Amino acid sequence: MTSTSATLEELVEQFAKLPGIGRKTAFRLAYHVLKASPESARNLARAILDVKDKIRTCSICFNISDDDPCPICGDAERNQQTLCVVEEPHDVLAFQRAGAFDGVFHVLGGVFSPLDGIGPEDLKIAELVTRAKNGVEEIILATNPTPEGETTALYIARLLKPLGVKVSRIARGLPMGGDVEYADQHTLAKALEGRTEF
Amino acid sequence: MTSTSATLEELVEQFAKLPGIGRKTAFRLAYHVLKASPESARNLARAILDVKDKIRTCSICFNISDDDPCPICGDAERNQQTLCVVEEPHDVLAFQRAGAFDGVFHVLGGVFSPLDGIGPEDLKIAELVTRAKNGVEEIILATNPTPEGETTALYIARLLKPLGVKVSRIARGLPMGGDVEYADQHTLAKALEGRTEF
Repeated sequence: MTSTSATLEELVEQFAKLPGIGRKTAFRLAYHVLKASPESARNLARAILDVKDKIRTCSICFNISDDDPCPICGDAERNQQTLCVVEEPHDVLAFQRAGAFDGVFHVLGGVFSPLDGIGPEDLKIAELVTRAKNGVEEIILATNPTPEGETTALYIARLLKPLGVKVSRIARGLPMGGDVEYADQHTLAKALEGRTEF
Repeated sequence: MTSTSATLEELVEQFAKLPGIGRKTAFRLAYHVLKASPESARNLARAILDVKDKIRTCSICFNISDDDPCPICGDAERNQQTLCVVEEPHDVLAFQRAGAFDGVFHVLGGVFSPLDGIGPEDLKIAELVTRAKNGVEEIILATNPTPEGETTALYIARLLKPLGVKVSRIARGLPMGGDVEYADQHTLAKALEGRTEF
């Protein structure tokens, strides 16, 4: 036995299960909780339980939300005719933070991954097709520019095209503030391919 | 509003209050909890509450423990005549992990820090003197080799010496596997000062 408190050890174990948290960090966190006020520990515990109890999935866009439909789908000010298709809820957050999009979203819940056995039926693709059929103007495919994201975007584009809806893919190229010298070959190739006229 | 879930936002806030956890990491952790099984979320929440409810301070050594006295003070196999004085409970853990000490501990609960207004009366120094008077053979001062730790050790040594108890300070020198070339001047000076004969 090294620790004198099995209770503290248990919390270290629990923290160490979180992604990116090693034993040392877990101990530091547990020790912080031990030293913190009872109230702040209760707040943390309650927030953890609430996330499991209160958060649901929006039945329209499949984003996580406290309400159904989510505030974005329920917002009459937003352009409900333009759909931005993303992989995960945190991608919605990134677009919202950027403040560059005033349409609505569709969260796939992942991308194709043959190794993990994730195919079209595991993602919200059938639901996207249903939405596309109900009078949407444009569907922007904003999956990540990774092999899996590209494949998933291509698959969805082929599925939607015959429905007569406009389908687009977000631009891939050099990030703002980036450096041509240090850009990898695939990014440079995409940047050339996606060039726009002045 | 960026997030579609105030509940998730709240958990991100709570995680971000932990030391060394920024907003991005906090979001990753919160998202992990959201995706994890209800059981593992409950286990984490319960472990947090238990730490506040169940852990107490050992009335002998002031280490954190589930029981009073702690398992170390209550262990008849350990040498109760040799006290190792440390700053914090995690220092006890370090010695226990190293397995290099079979005596008992005394946790000060910090070190002198004039800037934070922490003086002798804020640490368990009076309690250490009481223990020293009750027939202890040796007291090893194992506060950190920092200005604060050194000052605290010196103060305690001066307090204990008149009691006739043997007082020692842990060695300061090059760490095992270390490099003379890269050692700082204070460490090298201490290493020379503390040299032992072959």
